[in-house]
Amino acid sequence: MISQTAYAMGAAPNEIRQIFEYGRQQAKLLGEDKVFDFSLGNPSVPAPGKVNESIHRLLETESSIRIHGYTSGAGGDILRAAVAENLTRRFGKKIRPENVFITCGAAPAMLAALHALRTENSEIIAIAPYFMEYKTFTEASGSKFLTVPAESGTFQVDTVALAAAVNENTQAVILNSPNNPTGAVLTEENLRAVAALLTERSEAYGHPIYIIADEPYRELVYDGATVPFIPNIYRNTIVCYSWSKSLSLPGERVGYVLVPDDADDARELFLAVAGGARMSGHVCAPSLMQRAVAESIDCMPDLNAYGENRRILYEGLCAIGYECARPDGAFYLFVKTPGGDNKVFGDLAKEKNLLVVPSEPFGIPGWFRLGYCVSRDMIVRSLPVFREVFETMQQRG
Amino acid sequence: MISQTAYAMGAAPNEIRQIFEYGRQQAKLLGEDKVFDFSLGNPSVPAPGKVNESIHRLLETESSIRIHGYTSGAGGDILRAAVAENLTRRFGKKIRPENVFITCGAAPAMLAALHALRTENSEIIAIAPYFMEYKTFTEASGSKFLTVPAESGTFQVDTVALAAAVNENTQAVILNSPNNPTGAVLTEENLRAVAALLTERSEAYGHPIYIIADEPYRELVYDGATVPFIPNIYRNTIVCYSWSKSLSLPGERVGYVLVPDDADDARELFLAVAGGARMSGHVCAPSLMQRAVAESIDCMPDLNAYGENRRILYEGLCAIGYECARPDGAFYLFVKTPGGDNKVFGDLAKEKNLLVVPSEPFGIPGWFRLGYCVSRDMIVRSLPVFREVFETMQQRG
Repeated sequence: MISQTAYAMGAAPNEIRQIFEYGRQQAKLLGEDKVFDFSLGNPSVPAPGKVNESIHRLLETESSIRIHGYTSGAGGDILRAAVAENLTRRFGKKIRPENVFITCGAAPAMLAALHALRTENSEIIAIAPYFMEYKTFTEASGSKFLTVPAESGTFQVDTVALAAAVNENTQAVILNSPNNPTGAVLTEENLRAVAALLTERSEAYGHPIYIIADEPYRELVYDGATVPFIPNIYRNTIVCYSWSKSLSLPGERVGYVLVPDDADDARELFLAVAGGARMSGHVCAPSLMQRAVAESIDCMPDLNAYGENRRILYEGLCAIGYECARPDGAFYLFVKTPGGDNKVFGDLAKEKNLLVVPSEPFGIPGWFRLGYCVSRDMIVRSLPVFREVFETMQQRG
Repeated sequence: MISQTAYAMGAAPNEIRQIFEYGRQQAKLLGEDKVFDFSLGNPSVPAPGKVNESIHRLLETESSIRIHGYTSGAGGDILRAAVAENLTRRFGKKIRPENVFITCGAAPAMLAALHALRTENSEIIAIAPYFMEYKTFTEASGSKFLTVPAESGTFQVDTVALAAAVNENTQAVILNSPNNPTGAVLTEENLRAVAALLTERSEAYGHPIYIIADEPYRELVYDGATVPFIPNIYRNTIVCYSWSKSLSLPGERVGYVLVPDDADDARELFLAVAGGARMSGHVCAPSLMQRAVAESIDCMPDLNAYGENRRILYEGLCAIGYECARPDGAFYLFVKTPGGDNKVFGDLAKEKNLLVVPSEPFGIPGWFRLGYCVSRDMIVRSLPVFREVFETMQQRG
């Protein structure tokens, strides 16, 4: 007499976590320098110094009741105002504090948006490869989860494939740019094509089809790549954000849902997002950390560190002969599996304590993901091991 | 094409918050000393100094990656171990860290437990008056919400009424002791009677009926009252806890779900709780605050402050002629409405800027709730106003 749905979600092995735990064991056994663990997507650079400075000062200058007390459910005024000002200034679209609902990170932000859009027979489409929790969140909210493969190699949205999947039950398309696991950034041209399709279909079906833009990696881009602000391209866009990656605060659980004023039914939608959050047990996001984030909202992550890791890994693997998707953002490199069989490749790599994440949980076969949010030294030391594995795979042919 | 359920939950006026906002406006208009606001249940004593000391030190001594990084979904090892040790020591029942799932406060703890117990036709019973969000949480999890009135005056569980409501679809009974809104603490005798009933019915129906014990006020008791540890009385008890009240950290969102080893299907239930949390977008509880709470886990709230407020308010209102439930715990006084009509009484009180919460949202008519987590001075100044309102109600007869 226990929920089989909840049990299955709790009992499901977390593949990434299992790989990571294996790496920890091997490191204890063999030494840290013998293990090459690319499994996780945790920031490896510290939070900006300003975050801790803010915390120290806030604790000294604000009363306990004020700094540790409830904020309103939608977030404290200071952070909501900071987000609105930051987005308006950077993207030239007027965002008001009233458009911003502060959440305990991007996951509950997605849940709140998905609950808000759950209607009878509602369907949500994600582009594969996709962050694996989208399926969990969509099904938990009660909608049907569908996927459409991205364009091969570029990992842009394949608008022909998307057009074939969108139907009158489609409530939203989830976009994740910069992307986990590919690092791809959707171009303005691609987004305009998606917007044209969704505009046409929204009119045809007589109801808006929203984009849910999951953007925790927005600030992590390289070589001058830009991440278009999707509400500027398609007004029915709900943005879900988190400071987990950009401020290296993944454990602190602060993020937001943005519903712009020009979205259809914007006010009703915002209230439904608030209701969706309440249905998930949301009360408010952590109060002290809301204040600290507000003060660091213009800080940027250490892109030099990630960018240099990216360059060394990408160039190193390409030189060996691996086929890699060139990542414009996030901190992942998506690599075609030599031979195409992740089980064979993964086992061989594991023998050499080279730990990678196979692409199957992301919804496509034949690739693997490397998180390059790791030490530079480990990347450099891993390249000869990548070469060995590559050559063995070739010999096996 | 927006979820009407989510919209209704987001758009529903929060009655308590509205009363509070009215009080803020009146205070601006007339001055703070002219408004007597008993609407909220927010701690009015600061967090123990140790909490902020811990935060300062942790930021100085731990790496950013470690202190602001993800913990596992079930919580960081340090806090889980601290909870297990604290409960084992205080209540003499062996609790292991593996029994404890750390959440972002009591609300998501309840959601996780309710998702875990949601089956076909599942029903959850609460004892009225009850904390109003139980209905929201239960219905969001997909179960049916039923209520049973408490024993008149004592606010103990009425086991005869409960026996009439429990049926083969009953998955859990929610108990909240010390209680919001009444301040009542369930006695060991009462809990043993509830346990006997549920044990008998569990056997009759062939499946366990759990108690969900919502205990954010556990540490707030007066005059030597004790709060029995329900898992010692009934093994199929799931405890939901939060440090919001006991450490005055309501905005910081740290709490837990406890599933004791001797509960039926304990391991499956724990995993279903983890799955239920994941279905609500749980990733982990705020990481820095998990560590700070672990270090302050043995701190107690300033019971002298609340206790003295309670004494002055209770004795003052009784002397005027109000009929009050004697509160053994929490920081609420539940008072019978003179004349019985909350609308008439509430309007009259509001005219004098005496702001109270009517009992209807808690599931019973004819009472009002006073939060005495306010300044002592306001309580003292409010007593003549309570007298005026009481006398006017009597004159109106």
